[in-house]
Amino acid sequence: MHKITETVIEADPKLPVIRMARDFAATPEQLMRAHTDPELFAKWVGPDGLTTRIEHWDARSGGSWRYVAAQGDAEFGFHGSFHEVAPGRIVQTFTFEGEPEGVALETLWFDDLGDGRTRLRAQSLVDSFEGRDAWLRSGMETGVNEGYAKLERMIADGAV
Amino acid sequence: MHKITETVIEADPKLPVIRMARDFAATPEQLMRAHTDPELFAKWVGPDGLTTRIEHWDARSGGSWRYVAAQGDAEFGFHGSFHEVAPGRIVQTFTFEGEPEGVALETLWFDDLGDGRTRLRAQSLVDSFEGRDAWLRSGMETGVNEGYAKLERMIADGAV
Repeated sequence: MHKITETVIEADPKLPVIRMARDFAATPEQLMRAHTDPELFAKWVGPDGLTTRIEHWDARSGGSWRYVAAQGDAEFGFHGSFHEVAPGRIVQTFTFEGEPEGVALETLWFDDLGDGRTRLRAQSLVDSFEGRDAWLRSGMETGVNEGYAKLERMIADGAV
Repeated sequence: MHKITETVIEADPKLPVIRMARDFAATPEQLMRAHTDPELFAKWVGPDGLTTRIEHWDARSGGSWRYVAAQGDAEFGFHGSFHEVAPGRIVQTFTFEGEPEGVALETLWFDDLGDGRTRLRAQSLVDSFEGRDAWLRSGMETGVNEGYAKLERMIADGAV
């Protein structure tokens, strides 16, 4: 298995799915903490220049979440439910409140690569190819890459 | 729009989706109640011969649910999260605990047809065509049809 140091973002040709993968110099438990501890999560999620404010956070199976990303006066709300929070896997719903009809089903896997490294794999499933492709064209790649770069620095600094 | 008196169950040819539709002699509010009130829901969901026991039920956006369907000593558990419970639409996750890795994203719409009639439309989205087709072959059609027939009788009896 070769190392994935930049985020790989792929659209499935046959399913309305986006897949992402990236390796981190962290254990699965550290990555799980970075995704479930609200204070840690707010520090790295999203593109540079936006500040994340957690409005609601209950990171357990059956819980739910909401946060607002702000840049000056502009605010963008996101919310969803945690279907499953278990060692190695998080399954959650995801709605960007600017498009309240849209709901994605997201799955995150934390694959132990040994030697303190973990591969984060993420899958986002929606109910149309048009919606999936519009999301890919929206600039989500920048947010994902800048967010994971922040997480990488936090890991290197011992903050996770 | 013609009447849909039997349940229409369709597999989308291009998306890993099952769609269902059926008309009921009830208002959208009555159908919403039949899907959100745990005592009502337990009385109609699932095939004849199984008894539904609600284990957890919090039918609001961000809530979650779990129930067990029992026939003699055989028990089948199901659980999920309510992503959205709003007038006209419910969005929820769904896992059959016999296949704990599988998660469907379900959307229900209650379309007012006027004259006290409502079209229930339901969509179930999964992340593979194989999983979708196995679910279709599992006999879910019987459970859906027998369940909706029970709901129809409850509506006729004034129980909803």
